[in-house]
Amino acid sequence: MSEISPSNLLEQLQWRYATKAFDPSQIISDEQIAAIEQSLVLTPSSFGLQPWHFLVISSQEIRQQLLPNSWNQRQVVDCSHFVVLAAKTSMAEADIDRFLERQIAVRGGSMQELSAYRDMMLGFTSSMDADKLLQWAKLQTYIALGQLMTSAALLGIDGCPMEGIDPVAYDKILDLPSKGLTTSVACALGYRSKEDAYAAVAKVRFEKSELITTQ
Amino acid sequence: MSEISPSNLLEQLQWRYATKAFDPSQIISDEQIAAIEQSLVLTPSSFGLQPWHFLVISSQEIRQQLLPNSWNQRQVVDCSHFVVLAAKTSMAEADIDRFLERQIAVRGGSMQELSAYRDMMLGFTSSMDADKLLQWAKLQTYIALGQLMTSAALLGIDGCPMEGIDPVAYDKILDLPSKGLTTSVACALGYRSKEDAYAAVAKVRFEKSELITTQ
Repeated sequence: MSEISPSNLLEQLQWRYATKAFDPSQIISDEQIAAIEQSLVLTPSSFGLQPWHFLVISSQEIRQQLLPNSWNQRQVVDCSHFVVLAAKTSMAEADIDRFLERQIAVRGGSMQELSAYRDMMLGFTSSMDADKLLQWAKLQTYIALGQLMTSAALLGIDGCPMEGIDPVAYDKILDLPSKGLTTSVACALGYRSKEDAYAAVAKVRFEKSELITTQ
Repeated sequence: MSEISPSNLLEQLQWRYATKAFDPSQIISDEQIAAIEQSLVLTPSSFGLQPWHFLVISSQEIRQQLLPNSWNQRQVVDCSHFVVLAAKTSMAEADIDRFLERQIAVRGGSMQELSAYRDMMLGFTSSMDADKLLQWAKLQTYIALGQLMTSAALLGIDGCPMEGIDPVAYDKILDLPSKGLTTSVACALGYRSKEDAYAAVAKVRFEKSELITTQ
């Protein structure tokens, strides 16, 4: 365990902001991007089912295609690595079994021992229609977005979450539907440009007393 | 800036797990809980609109009422602080103006200067019916959940995200509808019990190659 201090955490969370202009010449190191990817892998999810896939895109060719489908926001092409968080569009019995097989590979045990757990998860996923299931999966990808942005801030990497993207166009460019996936949200990662005026302005948050009730 | 190392980040993300049994005798310090609350306040959101409210509940009386509406999961009452993340059920013109007034208070400027920005946000929120708007707000609360769990892990605080709760009962107990809020998700925070066998088992995640595509 090597926990950090409250002031260290808050310093980094204060330091981060939704970066409007990236310095395209600054690339995230291999060690740092490996840690970012691992933070995505380690994100907690409902039942641990991980109903997601993450695309970490360096390719300028792909990013140039995404750009006009992102309101031409330059972060898509100027950042170091562009992350697309995709949600699984279904969670069938086979997906749950694949998860349980993975659990057995990691922790041991048998399918028979896990049958009550299997039934519970199946009961949960089969209670939802396709729309609800996708909503659930998208919610999970937003946990990943939160963990990603917090992790990046802690590592001193700038980021910009991007909801203003065209998921249908993204899906087509990234060939997601054939893999049972759909675009949920994206996040540009890299380093702020010295010219980004937004880096200097104060964060706008409601007063703590308006946002939090302690009882 | 006081960024942390990739290995420090990953050590803490590996250390965390969905805590099944908390040690009820261990209480999070005032300094730590203040940092947790501040990490909630600082969570990024769509347009910065912060369509949420957070309840940080120490009261055993309230938690005892929540317990039977949480599948009797003991984390609700055994943890140190129980956080309920609530989503706003509407985002009307007045809410957007309240946000802009806050922005002016923090950064200066005038409503007139922000009118194009105001129109853009209004166009966005008014394009959604009540259901879509609530989905959008809930997605934002899951960013907060991600930032909360990551922040707690970094501070050495244990947590357990809890989706298995009855939002209708929670809303009633916490009197949320009268405030334009509804329960989205919860998270128990505190310290793991020495008896929690889950603390020792390996994390189950799919292989990185299955979860991440680099291109």
